[in-house]
Amino acid sequence: MSVATDHERPTDTADPAALGAALSRVLDGQFADQRAAARESFPAEHLHRDPEQTIEQARDWVLHRLGELSDAGFGAAGIQRDADDRPDPAAAVIAFEMLAHGDLSTLIKSGVQFGLFGGAVVNLGTRWHHETFLPDITSMKLLGCYAMTELGHGSDVSELETTITYVPEADEYEVHSQTPEATKAYIGNAARDGRMAVVFGQLLVRGKNHGVHAVLVPIRDEAGADLPGVTSSDHGGKGGLLGVDNGMLRFDRVRVPRQMLLDRYGGVTEAGHYASAIESPNRRFFTMLGTLVRGRVCIAAGGGIAARRGLSIATRYALRRRQFTAPGHPEGVVLLDYLIHQRRLLPAIARAYALGFAQNELTAALVRVQGGGEHTEREQRRLETQAAGLKALATRFANDTIQECREACGGAGYLAENRLVGLRADADVFATFEGDNTVLLQLVTKALLTDYRQVWGDLDRVGMVQATARMVGGTVLERTAANLLISRLVETARRRPEELTLVDRGWHAYLFEEREQHALSSLARRMRRASGRDFESVNRLGDHMLFVARAHLERVVLEAFIAAIEGCADPDARAVLERLCTLFALSSINDDRAWFVEHNRLSTGRAKAIGAQINALCAELRPDALALVDGFGVPEAWLGAAFLEP
Amino acid sequence: MSVATDHERPTDTADPAALGAALSRVLDGQFADQRAAARESFPAEHLHRDPEQTIEQARDWVLHRLGELSDAGFGAAGIQRDADDRPDPAAAVIAFEMLAHGDLSTLIKSGVQFGLFGGAVVNLGTRWHHETFLPDITSMKLLGCYAMTELGHGSDVSELETTITYVPEADEYEVHSQTPEATKAYIGNAARDGRMAVVFGQLLVRGKNHGVHAVLVPIRDEAGADLPGVTSSDHGGKGGLLGVDNGMLRFDRVRVPRQMLLDRYGGVTEAGHYASAIESPNRRFFTMLGTLVRGRVCIAAGGGIAARRGLSIATRYALRRRQFTAPGHPEGVVLLDYLIHQRRLLPAIARAYALGFAQNELTAALVRVQGGGEHTEREQRRLETQAAGLKALATRFANDTIQECREACGGAGYLAENRLVGLRADADVFATFEGDNTVLLQLVTKALLTDYRQVWGDLDRVGMVQATARMVGGTVLERTAANLLISRLVETARRRPEELTLVDRGWHAYLFEEREQHALSSLARRMRRASGRDFESVNRLGDHMLFVARAHLERVVLEAFIAAIEGCADPDARAVLERLCTLFALSSINDDRAWFVEHNRLSTGRAKAIGAQINALCAELRPDALALVDGFGVPEAWLGAAFLEP
Repeated sequence: MSVATDHERPTDTADPAALGAALSRVLDGQFADQRAAARESFPAEHLHRDPEQTIEQARDWVLHRLGELSDAGFGAAGIQRDADDRPDPAAAVIAFEMLAHGDLSTLIKSGVQFGLFGGAVVNLGTRWHHETFLPDITSMKLLGCYAMTELGHGSDVSELETTITYVPEADEYEVHSQTPEATKAYIGNAARDGRMAVVFGQLLVRGKNHGVHAVLVPIRDEAGADLPGVTSSDHGGKGGLLGVDNGMLRFDRVRVPRQMLLDRYGGVTEAGHYASAIESPNRRFFTMLGTLVRGRVCIAAGGGIAARRGLSIATRYALRRRQFTAPGHPEGVVLLDYLIHQRRLLPAIARAYALGFAQNELTAALVRVQGGGEHTEREQRRLETQAAGLKALATRFANDTIQECREACGGAGYLAENRLVGLRADADVFATFEGDNTVLLQLVTKALLTDYRQVWGDLDRVGMVQATARMVGGTVLERTAANLLISRLVETARRRPEELTLVDRGWHAYLFEEREQHALSSLARRMRRASGRDFESVNRLGDHMLFVARAHLERVVLEAFIAAIEGCADPDARAVLERLCTLFALSSINDDRAWFVEHNRLSTGRAKAIGAQINALCAELRPDALALVDGFGVPEAWLGAAFLEP
Repeated sequence: MSVATDHERPTDTADPAALGAALSRVLDGQFADQRAAARESFPAEHLHRDPEQTIEQARDWVLHRLGELSDAGFGAAGIQRDADDRPDPAAAVIAFEMLAHGDLSTLIKSGVQFGLFGGAVVNLGTRWHHETFLPDITSMKLLGCYAMTELGHGSDVSELETTITYVPEADEYEVHSQTPEATKAYIGNAARDGRMAVVFGQLLVRGKNHGVHAVLVPIRDEAGADLPGVTSSDHGGKGGLLGVDNGMLRFDRVRVPRQMLLDRYGGVTEAGHYASAIESPNRRFFTMLGTLVRGRVCIAAGGGIAARRGLSIATRYALRRRQFTAPGHPEGVVLLDYLIHQRRLLPAIARAYALGFAQNELTAALVRVQGGGEHTEREQRRLETQAAGLKALATRFANDTIQECREACGGAGYLAENRLVGLRADADVFATFEGDNTVLLQLVTKALLTDYRQVWGDLDRVGMVQATARMVGGTVLERTAANLLISRLVETARRRPEELTLVDRGWHAYLFEEREQHALSSLARRMRRASGRDFESVNRLGDHMLFVARAHLERVVLEAFIAAIEGCADPDARAVLERLCTLFALSSINDDRAWFVEHNRLSTGRAKAIGAQINALCAELRPDALALVDGFGVPEAWLGAAFLEP
């Protein structure tokens, strides 16, 4: 099978800056104006920490830097500043993205203070809490913690062991760490700077457990000493994020007044009885957890920016660096002219664009749900699923990509002054916090299975197989954007998939859809057989569950890319984006090509040709490399890499 | 296709310590006695650095610690201490392995001082150098640098720009950094501790360039000040290895006496003329570079130990940690009972064993070549190829595995006190130094192609295809061990591969051989077509070259595993090793199963069944998990992970 080259062969970019700017506008998408304004006003003087700082120096620097950014409007952006302010989720995410261009400790400290601590007060609290605490939280006068995770319970929040017990005699709550495992762990702002914590625990009222709730607990006095009954400790050195003072908190029967409970979804009335507008404890729990969604949207965005920074550094270096002479290259071959080097960087660049478009859709969904307008519960649930999934996808991508970039820069990549190792070390834990990636991917699959069961639950095996064939455009494969176009593409491709070229967009969309659809329906069947049986029967489906989540997310990302291209009017940018989209799609298909062949979605002849087509795309995109990273919208001066200095 | 379970299902290990000890003896292989003795006498009190040390503190600590280890016999082990001492390569590698159980900065500082600096004096110098410098080098009185890499020339050593010019009038050499790119960079001991450097550069004698040679140049006075003409600088912070003082060196027409040239393979005679026993400059260059081989053997070994440490920590944690309750698991499910968690750790454990067996063969080959006995040039070349390849394979594995271990331990894995992040950060650059992994893999393929051409060079296309079928047991697929057994297994499997179970060892060996053989012969054909054409024609084969190298190395590793099992008399250990070998083999086949299907070596039915077979093997090995990591021979007390403390 020969390699299709129906994309026009590009000439060397005449004006990389213009092409980069055009790409950047497409990548900024519906938030282009806000992002451009944020870039304009962003204080870019002290972007990077000195990597030789001690932990104490790093914490001081970060606290100071966060104040500076907060003064410039990049702290509590989008968070209500008082009880009457309106939320602006887009502003919050965009501010977070901007911070992700600098020191990531500062980014995460901002997330702890404004997103988690402030966000909990906003979302779980009521008017009194907003009036009393938001002005000091948003001005950083009151620094706080989000004390959810416990030593014994990282991912399993419903089993938290901390108790919040209502004491009727005193009209107070008693907050208590029942066991060593109940110790709050990995909590930002807990080791040093926090003065108050949102503490999650089981709410016990008159002997009855009403499930996990959150309460505000002062933890330190003005001077920084632990308040009576509170014991804080310091996690000290970490793999990165040295400027964030993560630590542990223990509570020994600490009393707080009744109104300190964040009681939007449930609390104790003046009469001393538990009341909640949400009947089901389970639904109440998930409603409260739903407030985590913005954090996940932000971390996905932050991971995306971190990967772009890494790719910008490594690509710019690869365009300057020469190694080994070759015929026709007496000065040495430019690193990025090596096919192997292109394969390291260009597919990652394509995926970075793809994830960027998906991130835009995710942020837009957050705006719909949390922007103060009307939204359905279905939209809320869908947002939660996509946020969990994209967080896992984007942070995995960031870790893998920055590491690849580090290695692609050789020994120079290992020097702190070139910023890749610090970026890598800081971004590492993005894979863990705000929900462990492996757990989040399982959440995605569970949500898909729930949808699936709602549609197919009462069909028997034969009925399911028949129905599967009619499923395209149905409920499970919900369209995100460019709905009709993609349906049409897929339907056309379905008729004669093997006759299409490898760069045919409909063929890509068809394969992505088939991968998700088949994997999901077969998992549903296996789940049905396993359900009601022992733990092990379901446990053995774990790898299948992860595959389904990834297949789903890949489809969502591809469709976001297709929609973005549809919206692109600039012909030069569009031509490049078409190639990038093909490179992204073929790389994804290539990684799973065994699956496609095994499931008769791909002939072995076509499968073998994909690698050569990827190589051809790399060659086609090589002349645009500089414009591609310019298009990420990370100004070169912000990269802070010593080896890129003139 | 159903999952074969012809391995006996193990009962839970009755005595994990006994099984672990038995496994450890097999893994220690032919070096079991030496390794046991080294473990016994290893000073294990100050294994780990305080991760909160500043760079200066870290350098002080490491220098002191290296002295302590050196006093205990773990410094210059195996290096000649004077001109009449004998080399003992096994002792050198085993000492390096032991050091790899502790702080990796200390390991690398030891490698710089004894392996590189000392090794260059031993291998490139002659009697006068040995008499004059070895006693002080091995006693650490004289600390030194191995100044090969230049800013402009990392991987391309033949193009170094530093010059070593013979000045007849003075009977001296003038060492000079001709350009900014000639600056020696990333050099260990250069920033602070080194007093002398082995400087590599182009040797110019009376206007003629004799290619790269090495010369001893004093760089600092006793007080640590740069000597006249020498400018050192400090690379400062790095991604890890903070205790190694890497820096840069520039030379401004620095003069040294004639005898300072390490002239074993070439130098200037008393009469002032160049002389070398090796006629061809190219062969001379590669002979000198050949002395790098021990460094690569050591780094491969060090990477292997680092991965074992990571797996020991993560597996022990996964055996204690519970998360989420499930039917039948009211206390929560032990992490390692999750299939997904098994898939993260157990195949990596299997591969760690596999690499360990290959490492033993590599070390044995080093002993044959550098142990002072007779050896052929063929053995030397083969050693160089395997050292380059296994270094690349083992360090890639170490990086990927320790990262997986970090993530598998969640937030706790990110805390410095649990040692994974420090290990990961330090081991990172193993992928780059002693030869960039990507470059090394290409060296492997080039060596294979050279062998291939020698055998098949004069055959035409038809002849090659016919000959390929007769090739098994021939020269290109050289047998490393268990020669006859493997030939027999492969020949039997070749007759009816699709009828064998998925756990059939012959089938594994057959597929590994087919993968290498087919990939190599098709690359050779493509190379022949490309040769003589432009750079780009060969460049486009880059990904194919990397595939060949990996396929070759996988086969070498599998055969080492098979040979080790053959030598194992303990039935319990043998049963476990059979399962581990199958898990390793199937994981490797699974990763490339698209290739096998595309090349008609595997039916889609069998391909689809491999995943389930891997899951079944994980379940079978799960009860032995503790014994498996015990078998790595890393005492639990040495791990230093806070969360494993009782």
